[in-house]
Amino acid sequence: MQKLKCIIQYDGTAFSGYQVQPNGRTIQAEIEAVLSKMHKGEVVKIIASGRTDAGVHAVGQVIHFTSDLNIPLDGWKRALTAMLPADIRVADVHYANADFHARYDTTGKEYRYKVLNQTEADLFRRHYSYHVPQPLNIEAMRKACDYLEGEHDFTSFCSARTTVKGDKIRTITKAGIVVEGNELTFIFRGTGFLYNMVRILVGTLLEIGNGEHEPEKIMEMIRARDRSAAGKTAPPHGLFLWQVFY
Amino acid sequence: MQKLKCIIQYDGTAFSGYQVQPNGRTIQAEIEAVLSKMHKGEVVKIIASGRTDAGVHAVGQVIHFTSDLNIPLDGWKRALTAMLPADIRVADVHYANADFHARYDTTGKEYRYKVLNQTEADLFRRHYSYHVPQPLNIEAMRKACDYLEGEHDFTSFCSARTTVKGDKIRTITKAGIVVEGNELTFIFRGTGFLYNMVRILVGTLLEIGNGEHEPEKIMEMIRARDRSAAGKTAPPHGLFLWQVFY
Repeated sequence: MQKLKCIIQYDGTAFSGYQVQPNGRTIQAEIEAVLSKMHKGEVVKIIASGRTDAGVHAVGQVIHFTSDLNIPLDGWKRALTAMLPADIRVADVHYANADFHARYDTTGKEYRYKVLNQTEADLFRRHYSYHVPQPLNIEAMRKACDYLEGEHDFTSFCSARTTVKGDKIRTITKAGIVVEGNELTFIFRGTGFLYNMVRILVGTLLEIGNGEHEPEKIMEMIRARDRSAAGKTAPPHGLFLWQVFY
Repeated sequence: MQKLKCIIQYDGTAFSGYQVQPNGRTIQAEIEAVLSKMHKGEVVKIIASGRTDAGVHAVGQVIHFTSDLNIPLDGWKRALTAMLPADIRVADVHYANADFHARYDTTGKEYRYKVLNQTEADLFRRHYSYHVPQPLNIEAMRKACDYLEGEHDFTSFCSARTTVKGDKIRTITKAGIVVEGNELTFIFRGTGFLYNMVRILVGTLLEIGNGEHEPEKIMEMIRARDRSAAGKTAPPHGLFLWQVFY
């Protein structure tokens, strides 16, 4: 038996999310179906670093599974790429230690969120960025990002639908905004993220960017430990799971 | 009665092409359905500058139609944008002279074709650029572009399925390649284009780019006046109808 670790990418547009569910197409089900086919119908379970919601994309999702097939690494990559649908890609395949676990061993993650900040919508980026037509104050949003860095109780930035039972204290090691023309990329790196946390952070930062709140208000929102204190949840299609750290 | 001229954009991915046909979703049918709804069920025919094939995109397609509705220009834009599906956009609406004709009055067109030239495919650009993994000689392709400019008989670069009855002499006023990172944009501007002409030109240029032919070979291909003398037809999803001139 060999444990394999794969870096996978997906366009979340046509998926009901990562995790297998009774209705709707999921990334997990597509990959498990291909692996099952490769293993003569045997069930092969995959474990990911975490779930992503419907419409959310991944550039560096990590999964693991075990197999008794004798295939070299580039053969795995070629076979999976050929058999998977066009909206899932295997970027890399590695051998992993027998005790490696894609979810429990993560030490951190990076998410990116793309906002297209111009008057007119862009048809060709509609699935991959959130269109915000009103002008945004980048400096105010960057100031708020600085306040976000560090260890905080992020209860205010966690969906009420969370299943997390422990505390909601997480550390954001990096929060920043890269500007390229009219496209803003929000970058968040941290030890762990709560349910919808990045989308609520972005929704809140955009309210600071359009002048609804001062940047300092974000500290007050954190202290409130109440979801209703923070801003709206930004839509899923601007969000990318960018990288998983081990 | 008022004649209206609209600049429309579409993502060709989910369409069977521009023109109404018995099976499959078409851009013309979607727009005519919305106009008919606005005109209380009355049939409203639209005329475009020309057709585009399944998978081909448009940034600056032009259509015209006539209407007796009393709506200001920005109202037209708002109403159409709200009622059309997400993969068609109205970029602009103008009043046109009563004798304006979107097809017969064109004086030229610009097409662009995007090629992603890197080893790995890019999931998020798979519908909007043609992935060419092998290295390309840009200078050789640019040299061939220079030979294409001017008035030529483009029979060799016209699909055998054409319905054109007259001659196949056309003038290319500009043929060039813009390089941005790993993305190549082929730009063709001309007085008129034959069926599949841009895709055959790109397919041929790519064969020059990968060393199959010398740049000078393209003159020989033009002189042959035979489709089999030119290269393969590049796939539709890299092609954009960029602008129509009047």
